[in-house]
Amino acid sequence: MSFLDEVPWDAAGLIAAVTQDAASGRVLTVAWMNRAALAETVRLGEAVYWSRSRQRLWRKGEQSGHVQKVLEVRLDCDADAVLLKVEQVGGVACHTGRESCFFRKLEDGRWVAADPVLKDPATIYGK
Amino acid sequence: MSFLDEVPWDAAGLIAAVTQDAASGRVLTVAWMNRAALAETVRLGEAVYWSRSRQRLWRKGEQSGHVQKVLEVRLDCDADAVLLKVEQVGGVACHTGRESCFFRKLEDGRWVAADPVLKDPATIYGK
Repeated sequence: MSFLDEVPWDAAGLIAAVTQDAASGRVLTVAWMNRAALAETVRLGEAVYWSRSRQRLWRKGEQSGHVQKVLEVRLDCDADAVLLKVEQVGGVACHTGRESCFFRKLEDGRWVAADPVLKDPATIYGK
Repeated sequence: MSFLDEVPWDAAGLIAAVTQDAASGRVLTVAWMNRAALAETVRLGEAVYWSRSRQRLWRKGEQSGHVQKVLEVRLDCDADAVLLKVEQVGGVACHTGRESCFFRKLEDGRWVAADPVLKDPATIYGK
């Protein structure tokens, strides 16, 4: 019996994966994993997701170098989400060059970009 | 233009909602919201989710009293998840009586309950 068998994968074979910086507690990303992604994440000790847009395994940081080193993996009570506690290499999780993908805050009924861009995406992705 | 219109609700009309204790940084729950749930959450200042199992709006704490007072609402870069920073009334988010729903930790290939039960569920739900 593998820990993978205890996950009730949804109709698309996925589970939501919340990733949190282990040091700061900041929630960095929400992404998706299939069985292979979770298995690879645990095997490598680095976050591997399932890209729904590209329909393939996506090793976080494969292009940017902003790898997420996994320190802890948790499962919630109804087993429809996993939580990764990670060390975010480079301090940037978002493709916009920000620490977290959750950089927009609701203020007076509007989403406002509330966090600084730490690295120019053109530099990150060499475009 | 409402902030609700900027959310690209999925095929089922939902968005993932990650809820984090604002003080401790602990990720408490992952749940789902439809448009009405997010609107109500912002209007009330308390977390309201869409229960997929019961197919109805679910005001967190409606039975248990363990309401989540919302201090901040954030949206991620591709707008497929919201993050709530909350004050968790009663210090218990999980129906098992634990602080967080993510109480199972992967250890040596097994999910192990790693957090204490703070309140007896029988007491919480009066069963």
